[in-house]
Amino acid sequence: MRTGVWLVGARGSVATTSIVGGLALRAHLAGPTGCVTELPELRGPALPAFADLVFGGHDVATTPLAKRAETLAAAGVLPGRLVAALPDELAAVEEELRCAPGGDTPADRVAAVVRDLTDFRDRHRLDRVVVVNVSSTEPAAHPHPAHADLAALRDALADTPDVLPASSLYAYAALQAGCPYVDFTPSTGARLPALHALAVERGLPYAGHDGKTGETLVKSVLAPMFAMRHLRVRSWSGLNLLGGGDGANLADPAANAAKVESKQRVLGETLGYVPQGETRIDYVEDLGDFKTAWDLVTFTGFLDTRMRMEFTWHGCDSALAAPLVLDLARLTAAAHAAGRVGPLTELAFFFKDPLGAPTHSLAEQWARLTEFTRDLHAGKENADGHAG
Amino acid sequence: MRTGVWLVGARGSVATTSIVGGLALRAHLAGPTGCVTELPELRGPALPAFADLVFGGHDVATTPLAKRAETLAAAGVLPGRLVAALPDELAAVEEELRCAPGGDTPADRVAAVVRDLTDFRDRHRLDRVVVVNVSSTEPAAHPHPAHADLAALRDALADTPDVLPASSLYAYAALQAGCPYVDFTPSTGARLPALHALAVERGLPYAGHDGKTGETLVKSVLAPMFAMRHLRVRSWSGLNLLGGGDGANLADPAANAAKVESKQRVLGETLGYVPQGETRIDYVEDLGDFKTAWDLVTFTGFLDTRMRMEFTWHGCDSALAAPLVLDLARLTAAAHAAGRVGPLTELAFFFKDPLGAPTHSLAEQWARLTEFTRDLHAGKENADGHAG
Amino acid sequence: MRTGVWLVGARGSVATTSIVGGLALRAHLAGPTGCVTELPELRGPALPAFADLVFGGHDVATTPLAKRAETLAAAGVLPGRLVAALPDELAAVEEELRCAPGGDTPADRVAAVVRDLTDFRDRHRLDRVVVVNVSSTEPAAHPHPAHADLAALRDALADTPDVLPASSLYAYAALQAGCPYVDFTPSTGARLPALHALAVERGLPYAGHDGKTGETLVKSVLAPMFAMRHLRVRSWSGLNLLGGGDGANLADPAANAAKVESKQRVLGETLGYVPQGETRIDYVEDLGDFKTAWDLVTFTGFLDTRMRMEFTWHGCDSALAAPLVLDLARLTAAAHAAGRVGPLTELAFFFKDPLGAPTHSLAEQWARLTEFTRDLHAGKENADGHAG
Amino acid sequence: MRTGVWLVGARGSVATTSIVGGLALRAHLAGPTGCVTELPELRGPALPAFADLVFGGHDVATTPLAKRAETLAAAGVLPGRLVAALPDELAAVEEELRCAPGGDTPADRVAAVVRDLTDFRDRHRLDRVVVVNVSSTEPAAHPHPAHADLAALRDALADTPDVLPASSLYAYAALQAGCPYVDFTPSTGARLPALHALAVERGLPYAGHDGKTGETLVKSVLAPMFAMRHLRVRSWSGLNLLGGGDGANLADPAANAAKVESKQRVLGETLGYVPQGETRIDYVEDLGDFKTAWDLVTFTGFLDTRMRMEFTWHGCDSALAAPLVLDLARLTAAAHAAGRVGPLTELAFFFKDPLGAPTHSLAEQWARLTEFTRDLHAGKENADGHAG
Repeated sequence: MRTGVWLVGARGSVATTSIVGGLALRAHLAGPTGCVTELPELRGPALPAFADLVFGGHDVATTPLAKRAETLAAAGVLPGRLVAALPDELAAVEEELRCAPGGDTPADRVAAVVRDLTDFRDRHRLDRVVVVNVSSTEPAAHPHPAHADLAALRDALADTPDVLPASSLYAYAALQAGCPYVDFTPSTGARLPALHALAVERGLPYAGHDGKTGETLVKSVLAPMFAMRHLRVRSWSGLNLLGGGDGANLADPAANAAKVESKQRVLGETLGYVPQGETRIDYVEDLGDFKTAWDLVTFTGFLDTRMRMEFTWHGCDSALAAPLVLDLARLTAAAHAAGRVGPLTELAFFFKDPLGAPTHSLAEQWARLTEFTRDLHAGKENADGHAG
Repeated sequence: MRTGVWLVGARGSVATTSIVGGLALRAHLAGPTGCVTELPELRGPALPAFADLVFGGHDVATTPLAKRAETLAAAGVLPGRLVAALPDELAAVEEELRCAPGGDTPADRVAAVVRDLTDFRDRHRLDRVVVVNVSSTEPAAHPHPAHADLAALRDALADTPDVLPASSLYAYAALQAGCPYVDFTPSTGARLPALHALAVERGLPYAGHDGKTGETLVKSVLAPMFAMRHLRVRSWSGLNLLGGGDGANLADPAANAAKVESKQRVLGETLGYVPQGETRIDYVEDLGDFKTAWDLVTFTGFLDTRMRMEFTWHGCDSALAAPLVLDLARLTAAAHAAGRVGPLTELAFFFKDPLGAPTHSLAEQWARLTEFTRDLHAGKENADGHAG
Repeated sequence: MRTGVWLVGARGSVATTSIVGGLALRAHLAGPTGCVTELPELRGPALPAFADLVFGGHDVATTPLAKRAETLAAAGVLPGRLVAALPDELAAVEEELRCAPGGDTPADRVAAVVRDLTDFRDRHRLDRVVVVNVSSTEPAAHPHPAHADLAALRDALADTPDVLPASSLYAYAALQAGCPYVDFTPSTGARLPALHALAVERGLPYAGHDGKTGETLVKSVLAPMFAMRHLRVRSWSGLNLLGGGDGANLADPAANAAKVESKQRVLGETLGYVPQGETRIDYVEDLGDFKTAWDLVTFTGFLDTRMRMEFTWHGCDSALAAPLVLDLARLTAAAHAAGRVGPLTELAFFFKDPLGAPTHSLAEQWARLTEFTRDLHAGKENADGHAG
Repeated sequence: MRTGVWLVGARGSVATTSIVGGLALRAHLAGPTGCVTELPELRGPALPAFADLVFGGHDVATTPLAKRAETLAAAGVLPGRLVAALPDELAAVEEELRCAPGGDTPADRVAAVVRDLTDFRDRHRLDRVVVVNVSSTEPAAHPHPAHADLAALRDALADTPDVLPASSLYAYAALQAGCPYVDFTPSTGARLPALHALAVERGLPYAGHDGKTGETLVKSVLAPMFAMRHLRVRSWSGLNLLGGGDGANLADPAANAAKVESKQRVLGETLGYVPQGETRIDYVEDLGDFKTAWDLVTFTGFLDTRMRMEFTWHGCDSALAAPLVLDLARLTAAAHAAGRVGPLTELAFFFKDPLGAPTHSLAEQWARLTEFTRDLHAGKENADGHAG
């Protein structure tokens, strides 16, 4: 089951780490720490092997991939020995990276992306290509009537310059090209009725939004803990300090707002009320690819006794995100192979702001994810049995 | 369903807070924050109402209950207004407190406890009495051959002075008197084969060990988070600073050892390996009934990138424990009413070192607990329906 | 040496705590913890005794002082027993509180304040009155040409409604009435050339700005530590979470800006360069009169090895500020008695943004303060000797 | 002024970092971050230049220095590029390292060390050699009557096998060879009356004990802050987690005890009373050469309001210690050149447990240090002027 992984933002930190890691796993130079799909509870025949993954992608930047990998190694995100050990493999992926396409109209740009995806699939005789958006966070998109209607959207693409933000344009092109689409960012992506209609029309699954890699991951286990113990959370305040490319981008208040909102949602939906406090994101260049988040939770217990908890998370976002990108590519490919269409709500485990999320509790999301993969593996074994 | 709650260590901080809180709930002077059995997922007809709980207990100390309550109010553990509002109710409970009985032989002491329990049940026409051990942590018990055999134990009680530690003597007496037994401490309690045999013989349930109120509660959600994300925990170190009565007691290395071991178990059993690091307990008188715990977790993610997390928990142990004591009394009473016999493994949610624990993950323990109470409520409704 | 302490914002948390504390010290119901002037290095004959302090003040609010004190006691800022023990003393101070005066023109309001101050001094036969501004932080003042020239300011007060912000209007009135002025807030206060000229004209000292009570206090010892060890601070980020009256006020971005700027100054001036990072202030009502500040410092050592430090400060601003208000009143009174005129730069120890500050290092500020009081005491002993 | 720096424990992490850093400074490949003697307040003609330092030393280990440097580079303590750039320089130092000498009696071992030191001084035509002990912490030494008397000690060295611990044997040999001695560890070193007598006899200065590099450094500014503000510290608890060679060594309770005592001294001597709480050291191998310390301080302010502060220090001990080793070698050499004899109490700034320490406040220690160097530089300029 040869599977393409097409990364939008392919020269960014997350994509580069995903590619180096994927190649290292294929070459047995690294273990699968951080890869959820390699846990005993999820592993199985329905998922493409690491050796079956082929990487490609788009980016507006042009820094060579190997150079980006070296920079990440120098910053402590990647072991330098892996970059040194995989020069040919990285060069081969470099060949599969394309400039983010231009064009006079959105329709022209869509056509160019579709062409790049189709060529990639044909050139490598891939069973399918999963498109994963790991580019920088966009500001919130401007609403447009065509977002609600696929036919209207098709018309608008021909002549309305900004009808879709970039993430949604890529989602449109991916679906148009018959590729499942995953959004690892908080950007709009496939979250428009017209794009849902397109996914249904083409019989394709999609997943998102916003990879859950740090502070929100911790929140998704602590908030249920307070709820299960009937403790009343009075306030939950947080400060995220981050450098790196996405940090600078998030210093832009517009992008910041989308991210912050996505980060607080877990609290209201888990606790059933919104505690006081805010989550802030500040850019501190010196922190580089590492992020430090500090959260303070004040709560009351029995007879209103006041208590408090604080935590500091010091994580490397790229190292936390990259294995999840590989997980999502594998799981979405398997879902596609199994004929799943529309939003993959069972992948909520991976996201801050999951599509159609019935729960923000990590443990409940885990239960759904393990059931989902069990079904995929059983279906695959059945199919292989019948085929055999 | 009138239910007695007999507290061993009835003048301690946890017991006093449980009693004041239980009386305040009955008088509608306080809400059920911290009471797990009042969450929508657990509430139901099988549980005795707060108004149906009658308190009594043993203690070696003689400080009047109202005085203890005032001290706790001054320390910020309880609202003083509750103590002021409940003088008659506290005086009524005071009437039900007994000195820890002496006696020439263990058998004499057992007989005295049985008499106190039976008198209490009769005097208040109680359907049943649940005995809950909330006394100070004991040093680890000395092994004795009679622990393994009920008949041998009965013989030994007559003439072997220290055959059982105090917690187990109370467990023996409770079961002998037909009362379910709950151990909220890390002491031995009912955890001996001979006592299990006695529980089975008398058709009684029992539960324990060691209420999960602070640092270990947090561990029981964070450790599964690391496991579910396939992150490798390299070290987990903790320091617990606590004042108060149990703090001084835990400064004794022997008691300390039991507690520390119970605190680290969750890691090995959840992660499948034991990370480096230790958990320490230090007595700092100035902290009073509040406890500050600090934990440092170092872990590696994808491609062995090193990351870290730390948290500080600043909680009031009595305020965290007291509602759980009420929860356990209600749940154990309901289990007894439903005919349950032997260890109540479904109550693992409440304990650091749960009996027959199949899991240390809080979320999985929660799933078992909700299923357990659902069954209890359904059984009760059935029975009430048939009866009606 | 009977000394009036006239508090602008006399019903606020800081003022109320200062008054209760001052009365409690006079009645020997409390010790001088937190009072710097009671340390052996500073104590001496030049300072008015606590028994010689007489309190009065202005406020726009009208809540009775005893009621405010009870509220603070309920919030854990003050011991309730002190409020209960001092009803007559509090009632006596209540008699000395006045509404913030209105008037058609600034000149009218100045005249009313001058009248209140003069009446207070006469009524109690005080040697002097020190005016201390502990009201809420103002937004940054609008510049006006009259700020630079005393004659022009006098003219403008007669007909230009907003020529001075409230803090400066009080400073003007205080100096006009012959009273030294201390600004405990970051507001403009006496920091205008025209007001300096007035102070010189009247032969009066003044002091400020912005009491150093929490995070900045810690910064003023940690920043010199990094500097003395030649460690390179790369970033210093902070989040201040506070409830209480001033918290709500600081949620206003304009007031916030003044405070934040004053908080970061210590770094640039101590280190000789400005590290990355920002200090934020967020309002979290639930925290009440307590404040939690978290700071992260990243730094490099020898051969550019990267290291980090973080701290959490959990303090009660009113309890930290109130004894300093008493200290400043005593020291400013002594300086006035000794004939000091103009800014009291030796009081930099007390302020985030000290007037004419030659240093932000707490240790150096301490050295200047001890020398200053040594001189005051020596002068006083000399004078008393000559007099005797 | 050619100056030898003879390191006892020359292949350890601190020594290796000192050597690589000293060579890098000489080659202008690194800046002096972390070197206190390069601050404007301390720089001057009395100190030997980095280019004038020549390294040698003893060790029981035999791992090549370059290999140790590479290991430290891999652990993030040193930049690998420096190790790669200095192969010849490291090889030259390797030539100057000697095995820790054996011998039948202590006197034999002393003689061997004296020979090594004298040969080193002659071979490189050095003006002087400063011996710095950076070996592992020893258990507390056994008292012996000869410690109090130089003549008795000389006799005992001939026939009493363990009369001196290793650190003191090196101190004896250093002084015997005419070399000033610095103890960067908490071991006994020169802290014996007999060794003081020897230093006086030979006209030599000595310095120590226990380099102040992390948690205690922070304590030495925070404790004075609490004292200067008249805040009452109720408890001060700390946990130090460290890996690396010294970490394993400190896991030995005997060595641990010496270190812990030295760490708590600063509190009692600065505050004037000993707060509750303890400092603990735990070995966590995974932390490698980095150390994480967490401290909790509880304190009361005005009217006994309770507050708290906590901090986490995450530092690299070798990177913090190495520049101080160079500083101490330079300062001690200058003191020797200036004719100073006996304990250098002015160097208290550098030590946890300074010799004859009049103060533990970092700021006061700094004032003494700057005065000391000012005098040294003035003396040197005078001497050079007279000579010229």
